Amino acid sequence: MAGLIQPRVLKGFRDFLPETEILRKDIQTTLEKTFKSFGFVPIDTPVLEYTDVLLGKGSGETDKQIYRFDDHGGRDVAMRFDLTVPFARFMAAHINELYLPFKRYHISKVWRGENTQRGRYREFTQCDFDIVGLDSPEADFEILSIMHASLIALGLPAIHIHISHRGIFNTFLDSLGVSDESAEILRIVDKLAKIGEDSVREQLSELTNAAGAEKILEYISASGSFEEIIDKLESLCGGPSEGSERLRAVRKMMTDCGIEDLFILNPSITRGLDYYTGIVYETFLDELPGIGSVCSGGRYNNLASIYSKTEIPGVGSSIGLDRLLAALEELGAVTSKNSLTDVLIMNMDENLKGHYFKIASVMRAAGFNCEVFLENKKFKNQFSFAEKKSIPFAVICGEDEYKNSSITLKNLNSRENYEMITIEKAVEIMKEG
Amino acid sequence: MAGLIQPRVLKGFRDFLPETEILRKDIQTTLEKTFKSFGFVPIDTPVLEYTDVLLGKGSGETDKQIYRFDDHGGRDVAMRFDLTVPFARFMAAHINELYLPFKRYHISKVWRGENTQRGRYREFTQCDFDIVGLDSPEADFEILSIMHASLIALGLPAIHIHISHRGIFNTFLDSLGVSDESAEILRIVDKLAKIGEDSVREQLSELTNAAGAEKILEYISASGSFEEIIDKLESLCGGPSEGSERLRAVRKMMTDCGIEDLFILNPSITRGLDYYTGIVYETFLDELPGIGSVCSGGRYNNLASIYSKTEIPGVGSSIGLDRLLAALEELGAVTSKNSLTDVLIMNMDENLKGHYFKIASVMRAAGFNCEVFLENKKFKNQFSFAEKKSIPFAVICGEDEYKNSSITLKNLNSRENYEMITIEKAVEIMKEG
Repeated sequence: MAGLIQPRVLKGFRDFLPETEILRKDIQTTLEKTFKSFGFVPIDTPVLEYTDVLLGKGSGETDKQIYRFDDHGGRDVAMRFDLTVPFARFMAAHINELYLPFKRYHISKVWRGENTQRGRYREFTQCDFDIVGLDSPEADFEILSIMHASLIALGLPAIHIHISHRGIFNTFLDSLGVSDESAEILRIVDKLAKIGEDSVREQLSELTNAAGAEKILEYISASGSFEEIIDKLESLCGGPSEGSERLRAVRKMMTDCGIEDLFILNPSITRGLDYYTGIVYETFLDELPGIGSVCSGGRYNNLASIYSKTEIPGVGSSIGLDRLLAALEELGAVTSKNSLTDVLIMNMDENLKGHYFKIASVMRAAGFNCEVFLENKKFKNQFSFAEKKSIPFAVICGEDEYKNSSITLKNLNSRENYEMITIEKAVEIMKEG
Repeated sequence: MAGLIQPRVLKGFRDFLPETEILRKDIQTTLEKTFKSFGFVPIDTPVLEYTDVLLGKGSGETDKQIYRFDDHGGRDVAMRFDLTVPFARFMAAHINELYLPFKRYHISKVWRGENTQRGRYREFTQCDFDIVGLDSPEADFEILSIMHASLIALGLPAIHIHISHRGIFNTFLDSLGVSDESAEILRIVDKLAKIGEDSVREQLSELTNAAGAEKILEYISASGSFEEIIDKLESLCGGPSEGSERLRAVRKMMTDCGIEDLFILNPSITRGLDYYTGIVYETFLDELPGIGSVCSGGRYNNLASIYSKTEIPGVGSSIGLDRLLAALEELGAVTSKNSLTDVLIMNMDENLKGHYFKIASVMRAAGFNCEVFLENKKFKNQFSFAEKKSIPFAVICGEDEYKNSSITLKNLNSRENYEMITIEKAVEIMKEG
């Protein structure tokens, strides 16, 4: 016999045991329910794509991280590194089969060969939702509104969604005469929370000049109420703009709906990425600022430009499931469990096995998750099994119960016993909890 | 500007548009609900694994089909080609963290570079469920019982689960003195439906001899009731065996539970694969025999043998989601839809936008999926939008309704109007359908 193979997993990859996978599925279910409640529909795309389709002109960083190889047919293929690029490709391919505006969500894994020393994983799950085919304050608002509803539905305490607008910032940089440097300025400003104001000032001064750096810092540090900040930004830009009017319209919808409290106008939010053109946002947990943004996105006005001449404007957001779960765990906002079973049918009598399976099917038809204890083991072992799985109820049916067409129900938390009752009565008691 | 990149997908891979993805998710939800109702819990494993971990000693066929490459760190890695091998690796790695018997399900994609000309896909979804750590008729029965419950829950008409037993067949081959050829015999018998009795006889004769071939054909063609066939097999084997007694025990549980009708004892079922040791089964649709088995599996008694000295017996089954969906579509057992929206809030008045979003949030809180029509378009366009998405209800709120704190509800199927009613009343009407 050959030697054994060690059952190891790759660095940056993980097994999910039931304790974690149950939580992950719960989060996904809550998010999907929320997305659907706003009229969003699911799509799916292949994990493997042609490399040129995924990379387009390519950005250096992504190129290095992508899992890429030649398949059996000699095709240059790669595993997707996000859900945005496949969505752009999907829209270009199927735009004539879809009714615009198209509202889709996509929850799936993506892969990046990142440096795992920074606590990053190479396989992780993203939850994306976007509205494409529409450039309007209503669409911008709706995405914000879904972020709000999703995070509330997940029971996340004390969140704030920080909003900014790329268009206004670009107008401002134009007025300073530094729009050629805008990509670099965006990247520097994006690091504010990480490197601090002094470093940002220094780097901006080098790139532009001392006065320019000061002006930019004034812009990104603007404070006050949401409305006061819009006023401030408009005055820094030399007057209202399409962007500032868009922000006002979005703000009005927030207050009309009474959900304005969670939103902060924060001009220092830029989202490093080039393709955003309008509103952008990140979401922080008050109690865990260090974990970074758990839900981010913004408006882009030409999603599928590398595949199609048709301009497809859109706005969307992405939730990092892994980071979110880590946050929920750290905040004690979730309780992990290794079982979903509501009731255990105890194995009392070999001859009644078939009857136990029948009781179980009645319990399942009544909506309960039900297990029959499959082995011939002592009572003690069966209770210990129920305890390890935190199963709240047990059904006992020995010869006496069987002869009386009844069962005994045990509430394993309260230790209450309901002796010699019908299955229907047991179902009633269990429904009451 | 560089040329456009064609938004193409790889051969054997597919985009899933909402029409299909909604159905795929519905099937998954139904299956998960069923698995959970039997006390099963979800796990997940990485898509990429070390190649030696996935291939072990390797089988020729799998070797050729696997997506394999060197990653950035020079590791020889591969994408999983099924969910069984990763599960075996998972069990070897985590057996001390789990409580046995362990009942898990895993629904996920797998990849095989198969010849697409046979109508096969290179990316497809499997739904696996197994009980490991227990070798008993109860465990065998429970998997069969879940197959039964799952297929019923999916609304599949006229299914039959064909059962056989590898152990009995091996005893039989032993009695013929041809157990050395058993792997090859299994493969020939497995092709019975495809190549016909004459070809099977011919191939078996070549491998053994004419008398042997005749005996094997007698075994695999045994007919009669479930019980009669067990008697027949026992007599062909020279008496009862552990395997035949196991089958009798499983059969008794079926009849005790009243679900025996869907199960057929069919000794020609072998499942080509080497690792099965006990009961094996395949599921056929009476109306679509040509589509092949939609749910197959069996008992293996040493799941993780390539990774661990600990023997882990198990029994499980796998549903091919893609084949199942194809069957449901062909049978007209599913209706595809491109939207999940229950009610559309029409856009009547620019100034009431905020109010529309508020009505929508009340509808969502009442459990309805609700969209606000986001654009300023004519009534006609808005109704056409609702029709294309088969949205059953619309809410109209113009100035009159707004002033009266009311709305008008339209049932778009029956064309009934409910004018100037409260939102609460509208919710009531919608709940009645």
